Amino acid sequence: MNEREALAAIAADLPSAGDDCAVVGDRVLTTDMLHETTDFPDGVTRYTAGWRAVGASLSDVAAMGADAEAAVAVYAAPEFDPDALRGFIRGAREVCEAVDGEYVGGDLDDHDEFTVSTTALGATADPVLRSGASPGEAVCVTGSLGRTAAALRWFDRGDAERGNELFRFTPRVGAGVALRPYATAMMDSSDGLARSLHQLSEASDCGFAVESDSLPVDEAVRETSDGGREARERALFVGEDFELVFTLPESALDAAREASPTPLARVGTTTDDGVELDGDPLADRGYGH
Amino acid sequence: MNEREALAAIAADLPSAGDDCAVVGDRVLTTDMLHETTDFPDGVTRYTAGWRAVGASLSDVAAMGADAEAAVAVYAAPEFDPDALRGFIRGAREVCEAVDGEYVGGDLDDHDEFTVSTTALGATADPVLRSGASPGEAVCVTGSLGRTAAALRWFDRGDAERGNELFRFTPRVGAGVALRPYATAMMDSSDGLARSLHQLSEASDCGFAVESDSLPVDEAVRETSDGGREARERALFVGEDFELVFTLPESALDAAREASPTPLARVGTTTDDGVELDGDPLADRGYGH
Repeated sequence: MNEREALAAIAADLPSAGDDCAVVGDRVLTTDMLHETTDFPDGVTRYTAGWRAVGASLSDVAAMGADAEAAVAVYAAPEFDPDALRGFIRGAREVCEAVDGEYVGGDLDDHDEFTVSTTALGATADPVLRSGASPGEAVCVTGSLGRTAAALRWFDRGDAERGNELFRFTPRVGAGVALRPYATAMMDSSDGLARSLHQLSEASDCGFAVESDSLPVDEAVRETSDGGREARERALFVGEDFELVFTLPESALDAAREASPTPLARVGTTTDDGVELDGDPLADRGYGH
Repeated sequence: MNEREALAAIAADLPSAGDDCAVVGDRVLTTDMLHETTDFPDGVTRYTAGWRAVGASLSDVAAMGADAEAAVAVYAAPEFDPDALRGFIRGAREVCEAVDGEYVGGDLDDHDEFTVSTTALGATADPVLRSGASPGEAVCVTGSLGRTAAALRWFDRGDAERGNELFRFTPRVGAGVALRPYATAMMDSSDGLARSLHQLSEASDCGFAVESDSLPVDEAVRETSDGGREARERALFVGEDFELVFTLPESALDAAREASPTPLARVGTTTDDGVELDGDPLADRGYGH
């Protein structure tokens, strides 16, 4: 049983799970674990690892439309090099500062594989869930897609500097808060746009129709792809770009664009059912790397 | 550099760390990681693992004198057996319910070694820190010491049922909240009483003088020890009993006993400096197993 099947099997045991964060009164809480073999390719610095790991949890806070309050992390490694550890903490602190949150520490643990678990706490009395979309709305994405896909290729090619730069991202907390009054459903694109659309479709019980020409494919992924088609595929399926994917009434789109500190791309509309790209079914898969 | 030296090296980078929880406004937040090789001996069920891992974080909330609000966990394993996962979730949920908190879910992660990271959120506007003790106060411990030491021996001997039973503990949230008006410094005994006293001594800049006859050594550890001296050693150094260790004015002791739902043992007094047992220096070590 893989992770996804297991999550489905236990859904009934955990009715409060299934969104980017758990809602606890007027707070939202989320936790993640990242580790070397699957999340930190050769060349990722500990500074970038701290930034990215804590950023992934802050992105979940953003996806609820919540303000970022604080984050903690467990740094687990076979040895504790003080410079590496300081780099990690600096990355963790800076990504928190980038979204007006506070990095408040955590714990160390002896572990064979470099592993990081992060937790973020956010505040909102009115979180945006994945379940509020209905047919006939606009579907939008913040920023651009494919930065992580590009980073992975740079790491593969041994250009760690470009890889690290692309691997650090600004969690869309500012956009999430700005979009809260308008968005009917929202999540982050941590598993790729394709997976996100399927997850929103399932949670909201409506369909999604997306046009490939409207996808905000990042220049960095074009630059590292063999043509526009491959770039688009990677932007759709690789994921981990930590952009916000959300729906809102067409009539609210102008106001949302005005309010959001991050550019928004309108990529399609919600429909009665199915998830389609240019009229064809869009595969429900992610983690293309 | 080991975990402890590394923590000391980075203390300046993280001034907000160093207590059982980080304080974030009127909330407290704490995170931990436990894993199979060091924390879950052969025979520990997933139900017990869920209970204990989440309980360890709730114990940190208790140590701040905070109410328990919610907990989340990441369950990382090489495979996801639904029964094992359900057992874990049931343990996590039940330990939360035992302290009037809510288990609100978490995440799954593919990992070679069974690893759990847990986070707990608590609420108090007036947390009890480790730093408030001064000479001439009473030193107390909730409940009893040595349950974990006894559990480890039962696991060693192949009696997993007794091991599991002793491995599940009730986090002292009720006692922590009740003691909040009286305690001047408090922490949990996760690294053993000896380590806890040294940590309180360092944080509060005062000494501790403890009498061995007054230690609340659990019957379970006596039963699995070769005489009273060994039982006492194991109660002092093995740790992970998750009891509260705290100081308070002698004049507040009766009121604190009255308020606390858990029995309190007065084990000694605070002094000007040094950490002593029966007048001799007490070793600053923990993790005896």
